Amino acid sequence: MDSKAFFKLSYGVYIISTSADGRESGCVINTLTQVTSSPARLSIALNKENYTFKLIETSGTFSAVVLSDDVEMDLIRRFGFQCGKDVEKYDGIPHGRDSLYNPYPTEGVCARFTCRVVSSMDVGTHMIIVGEAVEAEVLDSQTPALTYSNYHLKKNGTTPPKAPSYQADTDKVTGWRCSVCGYILESETLPPDFICPVCGKDASYFVKL
Amino acid sequence: MDSKAFFKLSYGVYIISTSADGRESGCVINTLTQVTSSPARLSIALNKENYTFKLIETSGTFSAVVLSDDVEMDLIRRFGFQCGKDVEKYDGIPHGRDSLYNPYPTEGVCARFTCRVVSSMDVGTHMIIVGEAVEAEVLDSQTPALTYSNYHLKKNGTTPPKAPSYQADTDKVTGWRCSVCGYILESETLPPDFICPVCGKDASYFVKL
Repeated sequence: MDSKAFFKLSYGVYIISTSADGRESGCVINTLTQVTSSPARLSIALNKENYTFKLIETSGTFSAVVLSDDVEMDLIRRFGFQCGKDVEKYDGIPHGRDSLYNPYPTEGVCARFTCRVVSSMDVGTHMIIVGEAVEAEVLDSQTPALTYSNYHLKKNGTTPPKAPSYQADTDKVTGWRCSVCGYILESETLPPDFICPVCGKDASYFVKL
Repeated sequence: MDSKAFFKLSYGVYIISTSADGRESGCVINTLTQVTSSPARLSIALNKENYTFKLIETSGTFSAVVLSDDVEMDLIRRFGFQCGKDVEKYDGIPHGRDSLYNPYPTEGVCARFTCRVVSSMDVGTHMIIVGEAVEAEVLDSQTPALTYSNYHLKKNGTTPPKAPSYQADTDKVTGWRCSVCGYILESETLPPDFICPVCGKDASYFVKL
């Protein structure tokens, strides 16, 4: 199997959010897909370790925004590279609330949806969640959506997030680097079930240093 | 709900194929998504009326190719705008066979996968099918993948397929036109459960003439 074949798949970049039990959180995904039109239903795939996933299990609803091509990398870093269990991701950033009280970012986004969960399926490390759209709104009709390939270009043009592990002199480190957020695991071996503690990606996203 | 919000989602364009009971077929979809990495699993959403879907129910396997940006519109028309029940879609076009005997087109494509179905979920008009990748190959590393938005540009630059319904003088017709393949339903009303007999899209894809 040539893993480069998977890089030929095209995606957008989205932030999924919800609120439950007095907490709220969101995360970055690339797997938002419209699966039916009548009624309009959207599917997402979320890692089961993901904090937003755990909140959606309780709330049964989620908001989704489509990131714009001109989105600030800071917004992606805020929602994609840290865990909502430890950080209030919505603190201090412009956001709205949908009719089901889910928050959603309002800058750097071009469309939003609100969904009620109608079914879900366990697919291993991830759950596929299907939601029926109850709201859909264009927030910026001028700016195109950010594609996943443009996201990778954008990401490579910026400094990776600062955390103790990033401050190591990587020339001298033996270990594994997360190709999504840059986190480094200083270890000879990479456990197959390892999950990046910063961005939640699994072992397949890690490259040997 | 503003249906234009759904146009902000980004996809690629793919052909899914299988063979079962001495028949083989394929269809065009935009919903191929990698849902897990360890192991590599892909999901697709197929209309339950789709002939390829019915064959996959029997075979339990499918091939998937990623269409290239330079793919001929004829290939999309062949696989997307007609039903495999009536037409041998693979007759006369260059194709390969994967290790599970599924055919796949070899021109105008940049990567291919072979999947064994591991689970499925009924989501209304469509089924989400999850397959575990057993083969993955880059077929053309130079040409980028066709995006769904470029597909729409490509489509609008070409003549719609010829069928009796297209030969009508549309200026004088009252009815509904499928926005995907151009099929016209000559009727005052559009039944909500109507499925395009040419390309299989549901009523939401139809616009009033």
